[in-house]
Amino acid sequence: MRGLYIGRFQPFHLGHQAVLERIADEVDEVVIVIGSAQESHTPENPFTAGERIDMIHGALQALRDRCLVVPLADIKRNAVWVDHVRSMAPSFEIVYTNNPLVMQLFGEEGLDVRKPPMYRRDIYSGTAIRKLMLSGGDWQALVPDAVALVIDRIRGIERLTNISQSDYSSL
Amino acid sequence: MRGLYIGRFQPFHLGHQAVLERIADEVDEVVIVIGSAQESHTPENPFTAGERIDMIHGALQALRDRCLVVPLADIKRNAVWVDHVRSMAPSFEIVYTNNPLVMQLFGEEGLDVRKPPMYRRDIYSGTAIRKLMLSGGDWQALVPDAVALVIDRIRGIERLTNISQSDYSSL
Amino acid sequence: MRGLYIGRFQPFHLGHQAVLERIADEVDEVVIVIGSAQESHTPENPFTAGERIDMIHGALQALRDRCLVVPLADIKRNAVWVDHVRSMAPSFEIVYTNNPLVMQLFGEEGLDVRKPPMYRRDIYSGTAIRKLMLSGGDWQALVPDAVALVIDRIRGIERLTNISQSDYSSL
Amino acid sequence: MRGLYIGRFQPFHLGHQAVLERIADEVDEVVIVIGSAQESHTPENPFTAGERIDMIHGALQALRDRCLVVPLADIKRNAVWVDHVRSMAPSFEIVYTNNPLVMQLFGEEGLDVRKPPMYRRDIYSGTAIRKLMLSGGDWQALVPDAVALVIDRIRGIERLTNISQSDYSSL
Amino acid sequence: MRGLYIGRFQPFHLGHQAVLERIADEVDEVVIVIGSAQESHTPENPFTAGERIDMIHGALQALRDRCLVVPLADIKRNAVWVDHVRSMAPSFEIVYTNNPLVMQLFGEEGLDVRKPPMYRRDIYSGTAIRKLMLSGGDWQALVPDAVALVIDRIRGIERLTNISQSDYSSL
Amino acid sequence: MRGLYIGRFQPFHLGHQAVLERIADEVDEVVIVIGSAQESHTPENPFTAGERIDMIHGALQALRDRCLVVPLADIKRNAVWVDHVRSMAPSFEIVYTNNPLVMQLFGEEGLDVRKPPMYRRDIYSGTAIRKLMLSGGDWQALVPDAVALVIDRIRGIERLTNISQSDYSSL
Repeated sequence: MRGLYIGRFQPFHLGHQAVLERIADEVDEVVIVIGSAQESHTPENPFTAGERIDMIHGALQALRDRCLVVPLADIKRNAVWVDHVRSMAPSFEIVYTNNPLVMQLFGEEGLDVRKPPMYRRDIYSGTAIRKLMLSGGDWQALVPDAVALVIDRIRGIERLTNISQSDYSSL
Repeated sequence: MRGLYIGRFQPFHLGHQAVLERIADEVDEVVIVIGSAQESHTPENPFTAGERIDMIHGALQALRDRCLVVPLADIKRNAVWVDHVRSMAPSFEIVYTNNPLVMQLFGEEGLDVRKPPMYRRDIYSGTAIRKLMLSGGDWQALVPDAVALVIDRIRGIERLTNISQSDYSSL
Repeated sequence: MRGLYIGRFQPFHLGHQAVLERIADEVDEVVIVIGSAQESHTPENPFTAGERIDMIHGALQALRDRCLVVPLADIKRNAVWVDHVRSMAPSFEIVYTNNPLVMQLFGEEGLDVRKPPMYRRDIYSGTAIRKLMLSGGDWQALVPDAVALVIDRIRGIERLTNISQSDYSSL
Repeated sequence: MRGLYIGRFQPFHLGHQAVLERIADEVDEVVIVIGSAQESHTPENPFTAGERIDMIHGALQALRDRCLVVPLADIKRNAVWVDHVRSMAPSFEIVYTNNPLVMQLFGEEGLDVRKPPMYRRDIYSGTAIRKLMLSGGDWQALVPDAVALVIDRIRGIERLTNISQSDYSSL
Repeated sequence: MRGLYIGRFQPFHLGHQAVLERIADEVDEVVIVIGSAQESHTPENPFTAGERIDMIHGALQALRDRCLVVPLADIKRNAVWVDHVRSMAPSFEIVYTNNPLVMQLFGEEGLDVRKPPMYRRDIYSGTAIRKLMLSGGDWQALVPDAVALVIDRIRGIERLTNISQSDYSSL
Repeated sequence: MRGLYIGRFQPFHLGHQAVLERIADEVDEVVIVIGSAQESHTPENPFTAGERIDMIHGALQALRDRCLVVPLADIKRNAVWVDHVRSMAPSFEIVYTNNPLVMQLFGEEGLDVRKPPMYRRDIYSGTAIRKLMLSGGDWQALVPDAVALVIDRIRGIERLTNISQSDYSSL
């Protein structure tokens, strides 16, 4: 049995990791969908899909042979979004999500939607971590070591700092 | 002679109905263009184009053989929008609109643009009705019975409630 | 109960009309979907969606209050095409089609697909009629009078003749 | 040696002109890229790309044979934007920009990025000029005469005034 | 060190498998890019990206923890295609390809492009296998067992047969 | 008075140059629209829009201050194509074209369309020149010297040769 979990992973953090480890206890394999895959170099979505794959691949080493990571571009047509996911992702039986829109869309198509195990969303949140990155805070404590390595390699803090000064965030 | 009237109809309400009945007194046939047809499942645009056709088809039974309903996806290029409308809609001679942008665009192309008959826009507005739907107010009083039936059938209040909690309204 | 029938209607002809009249005997209302709505001014698709609506509206006068005509742009993603139709068309229960791809796609989604009543497809075909238009043949005999009127009004034969000389059919 | 300078030029103003004249002292030819070329008839982007070419062509008469003006549509994929510019613009060696996102994107690809000569950005700004246009202020003092002529010819103030009343700025 | 290998995998066959096993001897990890990911249900591209992931995941069980599979939609802008790949795929150092266009595009960007180890391309080809599927030939002999299982589960032969009768292969 | 001339210029050749010099005798300024600007690296469209600007800029040095060169991406909606051109190009009064589709589209919008002065289209044709490039023939004799220089600089013959071997010409 496969479970599907969707996130933007900007960046992948310890909250994601904890949830995925718990889901992996319930299902045989986990399909990890990287949403908004076409976005990068914006304050909300600083990292490319490829960089986010590198983060997840590094962080989930122990689960690697039971995870399938799939970048998914936005389709901007909510009414066809579920079939968009289904055609791009390998087959799955259960959807794990807390996002009310995702729940509604999968629910309208009759799929089995479950709330994933909880984690401290106030601390482990992409928004909070990106703020720490900009303010010089200790973001490294909130992400797996492998993620910090990817961000260092691509000079991610410098990138995020530069693009956050811009008033023109998508070209 | 045909008149064209454009709206998003999220949902179709008694204000729309009153305007269309008045326009139908002035012209032989009315082309009703459903704008932002590609949008659905968002707080601003909860209903699909198909659902909106169902609403209008039910509500305008008496005028049905003098109305042509045309869903129109946004083209996001204002400079070609008038020709986009013209190519997707059957031929028409007059445009009825209160929207300043629509007036400007049709005006630059030299078309006959008229203000439609007035109705109480403060009461009969999609925004106001969607708020009533979320707060449990009496939205049914502001829409034709046929529209309330469509919204019930598709469980529209539940949908709108769920997607309005989301911070991620387009996927 | 509603039946859905899809065609490109380049142009709408007596074969289409015969089929739709037969379908109208079986269901309460017919949803007529105009495929490739975004196409026009090419040898295969000379007429705009709006012009095709005008043709159908004129030809189906007797059925007008039981038909819902919906232009549908191609989405070029077969895997989401069924949900594209469903979101743009009013609700329906049965699909009438002879097109093997359409049958397959609706079938995979579990819909009720039926073969529409037969007509002489060798004579009544868009391709054959467009050839007659180019060669000066009697295409008028194969289309409803209302369709011939639309084609005359828009100078359709001149258009088709000009664009068929071009080696560059989409700009 | 060629330098590249990017702006939206809504409208082209004396600040742009001053910068371009200074750049023209440093390089043999200047590639002027008109960004967001697909936008028009919105409060932020009232003028079409063609109108903006007309403005620049009129204003830069003295430099005309050393300038290459290139309209560039947004690609909305920051990760491929630099190659988008490179494929649409003639070859160039230096990029002049103050925009942090543009600096970051060209920098990641290893190009030579320089800050253009300064001008009074508080006075000469598209935003400020569009506000003056709406309030009846002396916008003409801030743009080259040739630009004022273009805006008069297309009745630009009337357009901007109308579209700024709209709550629905892209169709 | 990572190598990147691109194919459409319609379907994944023993030739692909042999090449990938040889590449895996030369590099630490292999990035497998599934091209034309948005295509499905056509005679040339019968299977969705998700189905192709399922095929590869099943067939490459032994290499699973050293392979990263990435579906990639066509961008239809050759000039930005390399950066499209780079932004969607995890980082890589070597490209393995026999496709002259892919070689040219990566070569123009200065990447290290190598010819992958050879296999019998006359026998092991997607085109040949799809023909066998249509003619009732022994296609199973040319694909890994896991691939045949996926194709059976989705009733792939029935799908391919139906869509190959169609004269209208993309909707 | 301005005249507009459209071509793909793959590559710009002496026939184009002769036509443009003749048009320049009839009008004050010439708007040169580079069609299919988004295409490159295919057998039919080997050169990017930017490379084609470089060709024209080099070849038309004498006319440079009376020519405005505008790259134009295809919009693939013939019904809105004229307004697409109008919004991207500076204002113009006359269209010079031999293309029947372009004539038809501009004619339907009521513009002044004229046949440009003739040149030897059998000899000076992009198709013929690209064939000579592939076969090692004397293509240089058919293009301005400045064009040959651009093609040499970008190693255009090598590019065209490589991509013409490919069976997969757009990615």
